[in-house]
Amino acid sequence: MSARPLLDQLIDALRCLPGVGPKSAQRIAFHLLERDREGGERLARVMACAMRDIGQCDRCRTLTEASRCALCADPRRDSAQLCVVEQPSDLVAIEQATDFRGLYFVLGGRLSPLDGIGPAELGLERLAARLDEGEVREVILAISPTVEGGATAHFIADLAAGRGLSVTRLAQGVPLGGELDHLDGGTLALAFAGRRAL
Amino acid sequence: MSARPLLDQLIDALRCLPGVGPKSAQRIAFHLLERDREGGERLARVMACAMRDIGQCDRCRTLTEASRCALCADPRRDSAQLCVVEQPSDLVAIEQATDFRGLYFVLGGRLSPLDGIGPAELGLERLAARLDEGEVREVILAISPTVEGGATAHFIADLAAGRGLSVTRLAQGVPLGGELDHLDGGTLALAFAGRRAL
Repeated sequence: MSARPLLDQLIDALRCLPGVGPKSAQRIAFHLLERDREGGERLARVMACAMRDIGQCDRCRTLTEASRCALCADPRRDSAQLCVVEQPSDLVAIEQATDFRGLYFVLGGRLSPLDGIGPAELGLERLAARLDEGEVREVILAISPTVEGGATAHFIADLAAGRGLSVTRLAQGVPLGGELDHLDGGTLALAFAGRRAL
Repeated sequence: MSARPLLDQLIDALRCLPGVGPKSAQRIAFHLLERDREGGERLARVMACAMRDIGQCDRCRTLTEASRCALCADPRRDSAQLCVVEQPSDLVAIEQATDFRGLYFVLGGRLSPLDGIGPAELGLERLAARLDEGEVREVILAISPTVEGGATAHFIADLAAGRGLSVTRLAQGVPLGGELDHLDGGTLALAFAGRRAL
């Protein structure tokens, strides 16, 4: 144990949490020490296990402590639909919001040639191999509509189209509760051009 | 290990942090797992030690893993001045903001007869014993100016005055940067009545 007071070490260590500065770190430390030691002990225990044991699913690459995640291991999921997402958090968001019953493939990033991130760096050969297995019929691209996201989606669409698979991507338009006059022009133009019959 | 996915357990355990709901817990978990495992491992390690080892200083009752805290053990601190605070966090705030060189006594709460918190529950006999040691000359009351805080301060002031010690309390008035027209009437009246010659 170093000579620095443990309390100072705790305040310091808490700064690894996103958005936590010196003041909130201090507040959190006192809260746990004075009001919720049990919660703090449990958090320390679970966090140690999580940081050590959570790795990638060997099939979809989402975060899991098992070699295969619960979704990939579930025989009731429809292996004909493969939803491609950037991050594990996107997978969780789709699972929570939709009734999608297919499977996923996590990219772990976007193509960005300027940063040296090409198809090999994203491990897209594993996606290609997955498509070659022959089970997938539809590839759903759930990738952020940014420049890099667009390039990534385009690349994967080519991969899928070359194998005769159907490719879809998430609809773009006015978000729920969005006010038209606060919407950026690009989105508004897309939504207008993509209008649908009522 | 329970059958629940570790990621879910981590998200759940993070909710012991003050102000962290399900959504932020999820964001924190993904941040640590994807971007800062090292920080998460260190936090888990330090937090486990802190929750287990940090107790109270046997003299001032602030949080420390030692039997006596660094302040009480420091012979350069002036034992003639004793600052009484409610919580360890108040002690830290005063240490950080002022050049006070005396010692502290942490109450750990306020007198609140309706909640069954009397002098015995706050361990005020230890404060009395400390004053009886004869080293303290001035008792500084740094207690929140609430109803319960006022009653607590009053009780301690009697304790000190009965032993012929001088008793002071923090000045009350307009806070630095405070706008007069946003200030509550009570504080404004106090500040007006307590005006000082320029």
